[in-house]
Amino acid sequence: MNIKDKILEKLIKNKGKPISGERLANELSISRTAIWKHIRALREEGYVIDSSTNLGYSLMTLPDMLTPGGIKAGLKTSVIGKEIEYFKEIESTNVIACEIAGSVAEGTVVIAESQTGGRGRLGRKWISPEGGVWLSIILKPKIQPSYAPRITILAGVSVAKAIRSFGPEAMIKWPNDVLINGKKVCGILTEIEAEIDMIDHCVVGIGIDANVDTESFPEEFRDSSTSLKKELGHEINRVGFVQKLLEEFEVLYLKFQEGDFTAILEDWRSMSATIGEWVKITTQTRTIYGEAIGVDNEGALILETDEGKLEKIVAGNCEHLRRT
Amino acid sequence: MNIKDKILEKLIKNKGKPISGERLANELSISRTAIWKHIRALREEGYVIDSSTNLGYSLMTLPDMLTPGGIKAGLKTSVIGKEIEYFKEIESTNVIACEIAGSVAEGTVVIAESQTGGRGRLGRKWISPEGGVWLSIILKPKIQPSYAPRITILAGVSVAKAIRSFGPEAMIKWPNDVLINGKKVCGILTEIEAEIDMIDHCVVGIGIDANVDTESFPEEFRDSSTSLKKELGHEINRVGFVQKLLEEFEVLYLKFQEGDFTAILEDWRSMSATIGEWVKITTQTRTIYGEAIGVDNEGALILETDEGKLEKIVAGNCEHLRRT
Repeated sequence: MNIKDKILEKLIKNKGKPISGERLANELSISRTAIWKHIRALREEGYVIDSSTNLGYSLMTLPDMLTPGGIKAGLKTSVIGKEIEYFKEIESTNVIACEIAGSVAEGTVVIAESQTGGRGRLGRKWISPEGGVWLSIILKPKIQPSYAPRITILAGVSVAKAIRSFGPEAMIKWPNDVLINGKKVCGILTEIEAEIDMIDHCVVGIGIDANVDTESFPEEFRDSSTSLKKELGHEINRVGFVQKLLEEFEVLYLKFQEGDFTAILEDWRSMSATIGEWVKITTQTRTIYGEAIGVDNEGALILETDEGKLEKIVAGNCEHLRRT
Repeated sequence: MNIKDKILEKLIKNKGKPISGERLANELSISRTAIWKHIRALREEGYVIDSSTNLGYSLMTLPDMLTPGGIKAGLKTSVIGKEIEYFKEIESTNVIACEIAGSVAEGTVVIAESQTGGRGRLGRKWISPEGGVWLSIILKPKIQPSYAPRITILAGVSVAKAIRSFGPEAMIKWPNDVLINGKKVCGILTEIEAEIDMIDHCVVGIGIDANVDTESFPEEFRDSSTSLKKELGHEINRVGFVQKLLEEFEVLYLKFQEGDFTAILEDWRSMSATIGEWVKITTQTRTIYGEAIGVDNEGALILETDEGKLEKIVAGNCEHLRRT
């Protein structure tokens, strides 16, 4: 954590109460002039900081921004989000994350207020205006590429858990969309670079319509999308939400690293919007209809077709159908 | 193919016989001055080209270089090697291939006379002096990452076939080293970039000790390595070898694309140096000893241990042991 983030953390912990410049300078072993320069930089970022000659600096208002200092202040993780790369606007957090993955620590997060070229799965567009949560987590698990789908599953579970802690009953549509009341609130795009038998790095892109007005979305997305703001009837504290998400993610990622994937799959199954549904699956080579009856240990969907045949679907698009 | 490569192709087809500048200019629809400039560039690359005012240009000697024009002249492929990026010296053909993969056509080949930072599997060093064949093939198969090992297998088979067409009885050590008389002559490093259920691109790095003096290798590699030159007792025509390799690769890649992997596995099994051997396998998590009794449909090695138990090994290091 850099000095500016450390100052911000102290101010947030003492929100509304002044800390003297002398105390900050002593605690951080830098000059009072340096403190003053960092305070000025924080003010330029939108933090409202009162200063009085006798009492010192006190933080009055935090901007609604996902700056590293704000997220790290009080973040209870040891790996995920220890380093955060922040952008006001960016083409795509996944693109940057893939580019820097080789030279940063595991758990580094790339986050942006908005994306100009946000991407969904298979090259699809992902609308990413201000007010959302658009972030990518860089991971370096020592696993074979064939185990990578597990990371997408744990990402879906961590998003659903974070949303539930804010109220809405989030459900997971196979393989990894997160829904509220049947409408999509989050998409996950996992990308890997690997040798045949070893992942080099993995980037988990998570896009959540937090305080976004889905009414402004293009028509083709409008009816199938929702946002946390819409479901709750008010805006959420995005910084608090990101902290919760990174914390849930870390808990599950450490479980996964320890080889305990069963518990994660149990969570996934208990929040599944797909199991029990009549679905249409489109894969590279075929379209299959059937009832989704379960997921196996690798996260593959098990379908029972009209003829009573069981089909295992490793990857594909899933559409929930109304029974006729 | 650019104009210079087209001129070279015509000169190679007429090797030793003159073609007039006028004919070249007409056939390629460019000026005679342009022809002359390209001839000069070819001479700078090492091609010995005679010119006479009355008769025209005739190619006398080809340099021992893997230039695109030389390889493409007479290359019987439709996808693999249609575009070739050539370097006298490069850090690593795989590194460049991964960088350009997004913006070039499938089948593009990156080739270099020598590599300064050649890499083997799992970050190991790969010695790549002049005289070898160091190339990377860029592929964009529409498959899931879990099928990528098949590409390494077909690469191993194509290398072994190309070597056999030059004489030596190449064998394949599981998973994908190519051996002659029990010594390593080729390594293969396959790297992928992918979403969870779809490969974006795949780079197959192939390094072959062709006309290399393995006696100059560091001691730790010397005894276990050989070269085509050493096995044959003379240097090989590297351009001809690369053409054969790309042609064998394409035949197998097209079979693979059509879903006919069984025939490739049959070839692999018939050239296996590992099946029937007593082996030591080291994976991420354990070491296993046993007799290699076969490979399954995905290329996993099947071992029978001392206790008669069958073990399936998807990935790992394999060491052939002498029976005691």
